[in-house]
Amino acid sequence: MAGDGTDQRALQYEQTLMYGRYTQELGVYAREEAARLREERGFKRSISERTRSLELLQYDQGRCAKCRICILQCQKLLISRIGEDWIFLILLGLVMALVSWAMDFCIAVCLQAQKWMYGGLESNIFLQYLAWVTYPVVLISFSAGFTHIVAPQAAGSGIPEMKTILRGVVLKEYLTLKTFVAKVVGLTCALGSGMPLGKEGPFVHVASLCAALLSKFMSLFGGIYENTDENKSRNIEMLAAACAVGVGCCFAAPIGGVLFSIEVTSTFFAVRNYWRGFFAATFSAFIFRVLAVWNRDEETITALFKTRFRLDFPFDLQELPAFAVIGIASGFGGALFVYLNRLIVQFIRKQKTINKFLMKKRLLYPALVTLLISTLTFPPGFGQFMAGKLTQKESLVTLLDNRTWAKQGIAEEFDYIGHSHEWKHPQLNVFITLVIFIVMKFWMSALATTIPVPCGAFMPVFVIGAAFGRLVGESMAAWFPDGIHSDGMIYHIVPGGYAVVGAAALSGAVTHTVSTAVIVFELTGQISHILPIMIAVILANAVAQSLQPSIYDSIIRIKKLPYLPELGWGHQEKYNIRVEDIMVRDVGYVTLNCTYRQLHDALMSGHLKTFALVESAESMILLGSIERSQLQALLTQQLGRQRRLEFLRERALSEKKQVNEDGGQKINQEVRFQISTEESSFSPPRTLSPKPLKPALKRPSERSTEIPTSPQDSGIALKNLFCAHPGTEGMEEEPYGEDDMTMREIAEWEEQQLDEQVNFNNCKIDPAPFQLVERTSLHKTHTIFSLLGLDHAYVTSIGRLIGVVSLKELRKAIEGSVTVKGVKVRPPLASFRDSGTSSSETEATEIHKLWDLHTSLSIPREHHPSDSDDKSH
Amino acid sequence: MAGDGTDQRALQYEQTLMYGRYTQELGVYAREEAARLREERGFKRSISERTRSLELLQYDQGRCAKCRICILQCQKLLISRIGEDWIFLILLGLVMALVSWAMDFCIAVCLQAQKWMYGGLESNIFLQYLAWVTYPVVLISFSAGFTHIVAPQAAGSGIPEMKTILRGVVLKEYLTLKTFVAKVVGLTCALGSGMPLGKEGPFVHVASLCAALLSKFMSLFGGIYENTDENKSRNIEMLAAACAVGVGCCFAAPIGGVLFSIEVTSTFFAVRNYWRGFFAATFSAFIFRVLAVWNRDEETITALFKTRFRLDFPFDLQELPAFAVIGIASGFGGALFVYLNRLIVQFIRKQKTINKFLMKKRLLYPALVTLLISTLTFPPGFGQFMAGKLTQKESLVTLLDNRTWAKQGIAEEFDYIGHSHEWKHPQLNVFITLVIFIVMKFWMSALATTIPVPCGAFMPVFVIGAAFGRLVGESMAAWFPDGIHSDGMIYHIVPGGYAVVGAAALSGAVTHTVSTAVIVFELTGQISHILPIMIAVILANAVAQSLQPSIYDSIIRIKKLPYLPELGWGHQEKYNIRVEDIMVRDVGYVTLNCTYRQLHDALMSGHLKTFALVESAESMILLGSIERSQLQALLTQQLGRQRRLEFLRERALSEKKQVNEDGGQKINQEVRFQISTEESSFSPPRTLSPKPLKPALKRPSERSTEIPTSPQDSGIALKNLFCAHPGTEGMEEEPYGEDDMTMREIAEWEEQQLDEQVNFNNCKIDPAPFQLVERTSLHKTHTIFSLLGLDHAYVTSIGRLIGVVSLKELRKAIEGSVTVKGVKVRPPLASFRDSGTSSSETEATEIHKLWDLHTSLSIPREHHPSDSDDKSH
Repeated sequence: MAGDGTDQRALQYEQTLMYGRYTQELGVYAREEAARLREERGFKRSISERTRSLELLQYDQGRCAKCRICILQCQKLLISRIGEDWIFLILLGLVMALVSWAMDFCIAVCLQAQKWMYGGLESNIFLQYLAWVTYPVVLISFSAGFTHIVAPQAAGSGIPEMKTILRGVVLKEYLTLKTFVAKVVGLTCALGSGMPLGKEGPFVHVASLCAALLSKFMSLFGGIYENTDENKSRNIEMLAAACAVGVGCCFAAPIGGVLFSIEVTSTFFAVRNYWRGFFAATFSAFIFRVLAVWNRDEETITALFKTRFRLDFPFDLQELPAFAVIGIASGFGGALFVYLNRLIVQFIRKQKTINKFLMKKRLLYPALVTLLISTLTFPPGFGQFMAGKLTQKESLVTLLDNRTWAKQGIAEEFDYIGHSHEWKHPQLNVFITLVIFIVMKFWMSALATTIPVPCGAFMPVFVIGAAFGRLVGESMAAWFPDGIHSDGMIYHIVPGGYAVVGAAALSGAVTHTVSTAVIVFELTGQISHILPIMIAVILANAVAQSLQPSIYDSIIRIKKLPYLPELGWGHQEKYNIRVEDIMVRDVGYVTLNCTYRQLHDALMSGHLKTFALVESAESMILLGSIERSQLQALLTQQLGRQRRLEFLRERALSEKKQVNEDGGQKINQEVRFQISTEESSFSPPRTLSPKPLKPALKRPSERSTEIPTSPQDSGIALKNLFCAHPGTEGMEEEPYGEDDMTMREIAEWEEQQLDEQVNFNNCKIDPAPFQLVERTSLHKTHTIFSLLGLDHAYVTSIGRLIGVVSLKELRKAIEGSVTVKGVKVRPPLASFRDSGTSSSETEATEIHKLWDLHTSLSIPREHHPSDSDDKSH
Repeated sequence: MAGDGTDQRALQYEQTLMYGRYTQELGVYAREEAARLREERGFKRSISERTRSLELLQYDQGRCAKCRICILQCQKLLISRIGEDWIFLILLGLVMALVSWAMDFCIAVCLQAQKWMYGGLESNIFLQYLAWVTYPVVLISFSAGFTHIVAPQAAGSGIPEMKTILRGVVLKEYLTLKTFVAKVVGLTCALGSGMPLGKEGPFVHVASLCAALLSKFMSLFGGIYENTDENKSRNIEMLAAACAVGVGCCFAAPIGGVLFSIEVTSTFFAVRNYWRGFFAATFSAFIFRVLAVWNRDEETITALFKTRFRLDFPFDLQELPAFAVIGIASGFGGALFVYLNRLIVQFIRKQKTINKFLMKKRLLYPALVTLLISTLTFPPGFGQFMAGKLTQKESLVTLLDNRTWAKQGIAEEFDYIGHSHEWKHPQLNVFITLVIFIVMKFWMSALATTIPVPCGAFMPVFVIGAAFGRLVGESMAAWFPDGIHSDGMIYHIVPGGYAVVGAAALSGAVTHTVSTAVIVFELTGQISHILPIMIAVILANAVAQSLQPSIYDSIIRIKKLPYLPELGWGHQEKYNIRVEDIMVRDVGYVTLNCTYRQLHDALMSGHLKTFALVESAESMILLGSIERSQLQALLTQQLGRQRRLEFLRERALSEKKQVNEDGGQKINQEVRFQISTEESSFSPPRTLSPKPLKPALKRPSERSTEIPTSPQDSGIALKNLFCAHPGTEGMEEEPYGEDDMTMREIAEWEEQQLDEQVNFNNCKIDPAPFQLVERTSLHKTHTIFSLLGLDHAYVTSIGRLIGVVSLKELRKAIEGSVTVKGVKVRPPLASFRDSGTSSSETEATEIHKLWDLHTSLSIPREHHPSDSDDKSH
């Protein structure tokens, strides 16, 4: 972790290099980079020397030397090949399969332990309750604590962050070894507690972490991707493949995994990555299932939740309306789930007293929630009405069972199989058990997923969907006891099929994906219900998408991650908005022949991250763009202490020259001194070189430390620039230290310096910022921004700069707050959606302001949301 | 088809507008456009008037007026909603399902008819042979002839063309009603003939045609997408969805259809289109299968080729090596198929004598090929050794059968079911029958797909793959008669499962897709073999992709469609090439203050399609780009006859003025005349406005007709510019007609005109052409070109233009003919691939030259390959 600092700088450097930016600053960065490379090469050399010495050793031994040389050559080949994509993907698949399997094993052991404890204490119901409740509370508290201490970034699903990262935003701390450890350990404990949490979302994150670490590890061997610019684009491709692996090895669903990860994380997808995803996910799923066979859990490779529905007549055509009903109801349910989840987070945040209290005792909230949920599922208590004894996996297996539970009162019949009898309560109907289960699990899942531990919402929702489907199926079976088909043959209705449809529909509605259908096929190993499932999933999506954002987009909003929202499906009004309607006409620019004073004024005037460089204020021909930090560096260099000292020395020198006209060999010494000053005058840009913004969203007081030049170094004008409150403290106190200038002299000198013309030679200029024209539509602008991962684009008219559009304007326009041509442009059902988010609107803008302030002072596109805070408060 | 001309122009206009280009030419085009809109509005008004009158009528009638008003309002709402995406998609799905079902019905009838004829003539084997052979020959000849006469573009698969269209290149004639009719009729006949041809590739094209026509039809109602720029991007989105529908309703495989169409047609895929594809494809597949139920073909909705393998133990883990072998062998087989197919086309083309003869008798080649193939499949003849009696569909059903054919000599056992007995020959082993079938069908399919009728290669390859899989499966079953598993239970090997794996692997290898796996699941209705299939498909792809391009890319190469090849998978050397290595440094540019003479020289110097507009030759600051045609229009306007006449008149006027100092009211008249001249002087750009290049790749003589200004109008300098051989014909013949200038005077006048400074005011300038910098890598350049569908990009360094990269350079660099830093950059196995294409290398360059010549004179990105010629010659 020693080279992390330079590494981060390198990554940001790439960031600014994105889409071919060219630097002319050959000074500081190049040197650092060279040093880093030298170090790395040294490491590589030591490796290769070791192998060479080994080789010599082998050669000396005589005997079966040929054989050994052969082995060594193979080894060499292997090392040279180790950087190749397919080896990387195989390794990734293998590692993830092992991780997934080991984690499943641990989770199973944990759950077994709870059951064993519960069973052992059957004599005393109070002790039994204590054991039942304490166990998950301890596990969840440990998980929350461990995550918080090791890496707060590991909490939550991880899919929203991956989505943001794949959009091109650097969220560096989300891809470290610490986060990996925290995520894996935290997730195992959280799932082992038996809470209604899922493994799938976090697994996407774990796989990405794994890919990032593996990539770092392998870069020690292969020297193929030495160029950092390419390394970046390759990393993104590998992360996309890793997301597929995550879902693939979690559900043993390679195809569904690839599709789900595409739908969930990407806006535009490169088909060549698709291949990578398929390759890695298949390998991973294969190993995952083979491990189960080797462990004697299974006889051969089969689906995770295998169903055994009849093949000849899976369903009747007349059952389709029922499936459609499931789809539509799931759509509403999914939207409600997302809404409820967000409501809980916002409620917890808003209640200031609760908030403060919880902030002090970070583990209290998880413990309380766990206590509540486990109390309600206590089997001899309320849990008996909702099959509380069953784990999530067992519930799913029973729900997908192909027998009918409610055959006109003969519900007793099914007590011979595995766990299905849990659904049968002596006093209650199966229907009522199911309804209780659905209602209770629904809010429990929505609540549980707000705990700041690594957890996903997919699996709980999947189970709830299955229960809902089973409920509809059982009702249908009770309604048509002999099936619907009228042509002689009797085909009974299969409620298990309805459960499959319900599971796919509800999880599709919550995540806004269609590929849950494919995941369901792969999970159950049967594809016979393909059309009902597809229809239900599509209907559920249509309903849910018009009501609420997906659970991941909702989290992105809650966490305020810098992500561009999607254009809705079929909102044609988007086609009528043009760039000229949303662009900011007052562009911050600097001219090629401007003075430092103008530069200073431009920097003082706003918080822009980048400035346009135009030929002159009259022609306004766009030449490129310059980052704020670069301009600040220029100004610092011009007004900095070094130059002032230099000026002083020069003045002194010329004075001395006049004085020492007669006597002196001192001149020689002076000259040498002068040279050394010149050298040191080269360093100021170094201190200003890009440095990642720390996760300090909530700590505005840290802002001043972000500025690398201390006020003492910077003089008056710079002080104005860098300090929020220029004030007068220290202005008169000391005559600026060692140099013999008074305040007045300094001011004079600065005035003089500010009137000089700016020399852009040592400045990093992006010569090809992206350009749009006034008539470009919002739709096209969105496409281009998503495609290229842009941050802002200039609007030009035949080379002349006339405006600028940034992500912010675009986001505003898409979210419908721009009025165009008298019509308020809004998505059809946005009002309902707004009511959900408006409560946090005020704090949102405040935090946004803060963020803008921050990013304006630092490097663009570097963002570290303090999500752990968001979650635990 | 009356408005086609303006429509085409509008489309090209959009083309040039792509990515936000701004026009200042408000003259001609706007007027034409306005006229068109007026016409359309007139049409719409007539519709709305009709409904209004209806409404009034209804209102007058009293009685149940309320009810009728309600209906009318619904109707209005429907009409206003008709432009919405989802209605469009539903309509598309519905129409395509009906087309697919109707076509299947007709094909079934055709095949039935052949069988009936064959059965009826059993007494006379010669007559039987005649009937067996004549029937397909007639059908194929009709199909070829019909296609050739109605729309030659309809021949072949259509996927390569769709790929090119979705890349952003306008191939206008591929999306017309004529092509639709030709494709549907031709395809039905071709498949009805029983040749080894497929329906799937053409169906992608048919669905796209259907979408294009539907979109045209619906634009009459909805006024949402009035802006043509957006219309274009929406059309592309709809076409992408249509491709999914095509595959979806052909195989009743919505998911596989979406994935296959993505893999086959896209480089970058917008996830929001994915949704559209799923929606339309599901609806289409649903209707397609429901039609079968309503027609009493099926009892309920099931898979097209339903299999009934056992669920509990689908395959043993130890069978996996056999599946891997199938995958690898299929990879080689797929590559061989593509190679063979291309070889046949090239052989036919090269043989000049054959070529000439075939060109005269266009129907001879199809007839001969059909004769050969149908003779060999004649059941009492050679066909008895290869189950020749079975249709493609029947073969597939029998191959996927879940019984084992070769149970140690008890092959007699299986004569009780459907058609499986066809595979049992009294003298021959099942294995030998299968081998003969595979070998014969392999070359037959490769040959048959070169016939210029609408046909695809997917289904034949699928059947061959299934046969190969069945062969391996039967061998395994013979080798391990009691299964491999050793734990007491006996699980026999299921050769049908091997057939499924083989089918997916071979079709995946030929098309370079992984989604054939999904298609197979949906076709068979079973997903139990998911892992073997995925492994086999991935291995097959890995092998095939390293040996040959996909069948569609191969056709793209053969047809020379303007498509950018893919970057290979894991060719890391691509990361080391930079734009500066491949860019053309000698950029054709015009300066803002250049004279017409410089413009003329620039136009004369090369065949560039677009010229860079720079500020001045010294600064080289890039301001935008101008199309060649625009510059030509400027020059024409400056040197054209109108201006010459005007000049003459002015001169005459001033002379007259001097003469008529005393007497004359003639001046008034003259002035009026002058005004009219000015008006007409505005029209020249009109004649030069973009016009699609006709499919004239092979007719270079037509080139001169492409130039809209006749030499008489254009003067000497323009003649130089437009005519390939400026010559002297007609130079001295007449003193340029009506105007009283001699040649000498004209030349003088032109010299004078050419020295004037160019006025760019009326010129369409693209102010934001895409810019790269020298250090942009090839990989990134390729990504950007694919993402944005670029044609060329300028290379700049801080605003200064230093080079240009076009598709051509990029293609060259990717295909590995650029030497960088002393190393020849080539894909690993390219040498094998080259040997296949080198034979056509010479003609390729010639045709390319021609094409370059063409496109340089006309509009960029408009390309009409004469594929029908290519195919039938």
